[in-house]
Amino acid sequence: MAGKDLNALFLHQLKDTYFAENAILKALPKMMEAAQSGDLKVALGVHQKETEEQVKRLDQVFKSLGEKAEGVECKAIQGIIEEGREVLDEFRDGGALDAGLIAAAQAVEHYEITRYGTLLAWAKQLGLSEAGALIQETLVEEENTDQLLSELAEDAINPAAA
Amino acid sequence: MAGKDLNALFLHQLKDTYFAENAILKALPKMMEAAQSGDLKVALGVHQKETEEQVKRLDQVFKSLGEKAEGVECKAIQGIIEEGREVLDEFRDGGALDAGLIAAAQAVEHYEITRYGTLLAWAKQLGLSEAGALIQETLVEEENTDQLLSELAEDAINPAAA
Repeated sequence: MAGKDLNALFLHQLKDTYFAENAILKALPKMMEAAQSGDLKVALGVHQKETEEQVKRLDQVFKSLGEKAEGVECKAIQGIIEEGREVLDEFRDGGALDAGLIAAAQAVEHYEITRYGTLLAWAKQLGLSEAGALIQETLVEEENTDQLLSELAEDAINPAAA
Repeated sequence: MAGKDLNALFLHQLKDTYFAENAILKALPKMMEAAQSGDLKVALGVHQKETEEQVKRLDQVFKSLGEKAEGVECKAIQGIIEEGREVLDEFRDGGALDAGLIAAAQAVEHYEITRYGTLLAWAKQLGLSEAGALIQETLVEEENTDQLLSELAEDAINPAAA
């Protein structure tokens, strides 16, 4: 029974993450459009392409489990994206807009890092080696994106905003 | 003007984080109560005490800026906590409840890690050394808590759930 439960929890969180990735795919073009720095636009564009691949990877994870790829409403990512939108509106005309955009993008990255980290631990526990390998690939990308955004903020965006 | 903007953004995010920490303080006792593992109850209890200190540290950050300590509604943490509550309800009677609770707690930790990380980078940029030192202290605690929860999950909670 307990084994089935962790499998059910894994599937639930997989659907949550699928919903989140698709919500992020919709939000990224608006963030790209709003960004003032060319470097930030490029970084967000690269992550958009990466996110498209990550959704395909999730499709493969569902397939490896013999399950249909589908999302369940993820209130966490909705809240994170909505908060980013509010900051964008409030700081749109100021010099700190890009700094706020990076903060919003990193909040999204950290949500993905925690979810993929948990999914990876559960996949290992459940012996889901194919799913685990796919999840690990995405987790590394999310961690790299977060690191890249930190560097961009510290090297260029924050000094320009101050 | 741009300098003032990053200061305004810093203050906005400080208030967002203050709201988040206070929301977490309310959520933690319910998570502790629901936890089945004694070790998880203890870990959440320790983090409750730590969170109380982190709120006091934020009070000091506001004071160092000459600002009143107050929150602004943080939809991100509301979504993260609400999602945790739903998982708790759905998995309450199964063997994976504690695994779901740890996942929810780590989603909270990662939200805090991203916010304190951003606040630290902005404090450094703005030359807010007192605020920066306080924020760094909390950031290290959040990272340690996240690490501790990962270890607890991998060593005990996930094997028990599978």
